[in-house]
Amino acid sequence: MTTPLRLGIAGLGTVGVGVVKIVRQKANLLAERTGRPVVITAVSARSRDKDRGVNLSDYAWEDDPVALAKRDDVDVFVELMGGHDGPAKDATEAALAAGKDVVTANKAMLAHFGQELAIAAEDAGRVIRFEAAVAGGIPVIKALTEGLAGNQVSRVMGVMNGTCNYILTRMQDSGLPYEDVFQEASDLGYLEADPNLDVGGIDAGHKLALLSSIAFGTQVNFDGVELEGIQRISIEDIHQAAELGYKIKLLGVAQMTGRGLEQRMSPCLVPEDSPLGQLKGGTNMVVIEGDAVEQIVLRGPGAGEGPTASAVMGDVCDIARGFRLATFGAPAQGLQKAKVAQSNSPAPYYLHLTLEDKPGALAKIATVLGDNGVSIDRMRQTRHNNTNAPVLIVTHKTTRAALDLAVTAMKDTGVMVNDPVALRIETV
Amino acid sequence: MTTPLRLGIAGLGTVGVGVVKIVRQKANLLAERTGRPVVITAVSARSRDKDRGVNLSDYAWEDDPVALAKRDDVDVFVELMGGHDGPAKDATEAALAAGKDVVTANKAMLAHFGQELAIAAEDAGRVIRFEAAVAGGIPVIKALTEGLAGNQVSRVMGVMNGTCNYILTRMQDSGLPYEDVFQEASDLGYLEADPNLDVGGIDAGHKLALLSSIAFGTQVNFDGVELEGIQRISIEDIHQAAELGYKIKLLGVAQMTGRGLEQRMSPCLVPEDSPLGQLKGGTNMVVIEGDAVEQIVLRGPGAGEGPTASAVMGDVCDIARGFRLATFGAPAQGLQKAKVAQSNSPAPYYLHLTLEDKPGALAKIATVLGDNGVSIDRMRQTRHNNTNAPVLIVTHKTTRAALDLAVTAMKDTGVMVNDPVALRIETV
Repeated sequence: MTTPLRLGIAGLGTVGVGVVKIVRQKANLLAERTGRPVVITAVSARSRDKDRGVNLSDYAWEDDPVALAKRDDVDVFVELMGGHDGPAKDATEAALAAGKDVVTANKAMLAHFGQELAIAAEDAGRVIRFEAAVAGGIPVIKALTEGLAGNQVSRVMGVMNGTCNYILTRMQDSGLPYEDVFQEASDLGYLEADPNLDVGGIDAGHKLALLSSIAFGTQVNFDGVELEGIQRISIEDIHQAAELGYKIKLLGVAQMTGRGLEQRMSPCLVPEDSPLGQLKGGTNMVVIEGDAVEQIVLRGPGAGEGPTASAVMGDVCDIARGFRLATFGAPAQGLQKAKVAQSNSPAPYYLHLTLEDKPGALAKIATVLGDNGVSIDRMRQTRHNNTNAPVLIVTHKTTRAALDLAVTAMKDTGVMVNDPVALRIETV
Repeated sequence: MTTPLRLGIAGLGTVGVGVVKIVRQKANLLAERTGRPVVITAVSARSRDKDRGVNLSDYAWEDDPVALAKRDDVDVFVELMGGHDGPAKDATEAALAAGKDVVTANKAMLAHFGQELAIAAEDAGRVIRFEAAVAGGIPVIKALTEGLAGNQVSRVMGVMNGTCNYILTRMQDSGLPYEDVFQEASDLGYLEADPNLDVGGIDAGHKLALLSSIAFGTQVNFDGVELEGIQRISIEDIHQAAELGYKIKLLGVAQMTGRGLEQRMSPCLVPEDSPLGQLKGGTNMVVIEGDAVEQIVLRGPGAGEGPTASAVMGDVCDIARGFRLATFGAPAQGLQKAKVAQSNSPAPYYLHLTLEDKPGALAKIATVLGDNGVSIDRMRQTRHNNTNAPVLIVTHKTTRAALDLAVTAMKDTGVMVNDPVALRIETV
């Protein structure tokens, strides 16, 4: 089999350039490993004249990614433009309709339109591969769909937004407040154009929805992800959690329960000596739990030219080798919509309250918790120098529903200075 | 494609039974994921009458694994007998010759005969898959050969013998000496019939040789692995390493250098706050470093019914899906013998010496080190109550060759009570 596999690359940002470099520099290695040459025939990007540090003169240029997607000399359309709809989606659809396989790093597009694109791929007898869309260089899609194919997966968890993990780690290390570290991250260029995609948990939520679909064999459902960002995490919460033996992480958890599929992306406390607790900076981690394999932990860089291009090339090599896998690991026509379950699996919770410093305030809160069936594991009022008293409570296992009722009732006690911070303590 | 994939399983120990359970219990899931039924048609083991807790009555029985391997109603020969030659190898060869694919968990057989078996598979147009042979449930072979196919790998490291890691962790936690913990492990049934396979590093060395071949595209060469077991690690070494901020692990390292391929399996010091340093008990970990992906860390159970059966089933599902990959990731005929390099990459070393407690002893040792170009980073003589003085030295980066010369010269000083313990401090 010496027919070359011909790539058309749309999008020549960091990742696109990384892919071009690998294809150019490792032609022999790729041919040896896949049994056929892997070549680029055409590229497309917004600006033709920009110097990207790689030689593009061998490749045909298309201003329009849709035109690129349809070219006769392209076998695989590599979509690295981004954007959940618009040109990326148009070009992906055009590529499939024209009988091309698609490799993409576009988590937003697949989180929103994964099911319809998977159907389109299936109808066209083509594949969509998206290892680069989740957890950067970590081959987690492959691990879940292939390596662990003999497992019934029970839970998938992950820290999958490097920027949020950078911010939380940096707050802990520096003692600086959220706002300062957010600004640092912004100055360093770590944030998306719309920072809410990062700190609001949306980007990580996209990734969780994709992992969920694969893990549980259900239609991707981003709307079913309960999202909570890290914007309300204070340096005090980080310090208090540390004193209790925990780290705060923006953690995605998808688990199948008797009530349906729970998907949540939210700041959680995890034990500081667990693999998730030890994760620092921009590194990503995914934890997979299956009935046979027990628990697998995968750790690696979540972004960047090399790691993301590595993931794209893994997909490209699979296609070159003739490995053809349904987009979400099983035929799209057969995927069911998961019943969405409110995230209510019991867990201990961390509560950070600010009370007016007057007699009986703490008693009122304790009573409200008890009345709502939330029992207290540990409670402490920390030192303070003003009229407000910070109170920390770790509950025994409870449901989010019971906790929310208790929190609502707390607001009627007249002793709360502001809304409490309530963070799940995830068992990992 | 609804033709069933028919398995013949040779070996019904823990792993074999685990595979039978998955195939029986997850028929629908496997069919959905792979697009075809996966069934067992025949089995073979030493004793037919043993109660294994699974119903085998649906399957043909063969006393002879070679006969099983040749059966017309078997598509994939699943070799779970073990033993580096003998029946396992005979049956594997018979299966390939009869046009069957092979899935095996047999690291010893592949470490010794991997190249010739890969050639036999290639000649027969068949595949050998062996995810279960390395690091139990962790899909590391898949990650290396497929997910990271776009990378030039520079180094692969791993803790791949759960028993050794259990022993070292237990020594640290309990403060018990090696001999006691070895006996505990033996009583718990953690050790191979020949314990030297575990504590001598041979089993882990087999796994390293397989990873090496895949990572660097060379012929598997177990004889090129420098082996050193954990038998000489004392509780004092573990405590001293801990005080210096390190853990002692039986660590395999394969790296390509300008001088050739270094492969070593030996007790090393790793920083206690690194993922490797934090690994406890029977868990395995593999660290892969590639030019594009930077560093990926994979962690999971290294043995046991479920995890190992999970790895076997990952391979079976790949075959059911029609994924056909060369045994070591690239055509066997094209694999070169790696130039074997003595393990000499510079590193700091930990030295534990026992000196006669007399004036000038320490000075003699320091002089010998200096004369051989080994410079001292830290040195201390620990408290002692007898006539021998324990001395700990951490060197600056040096080569093993220089260190060995220094150690040889030390023995001529007349102040050494016994052979020093010299452990590499691996940069991870």
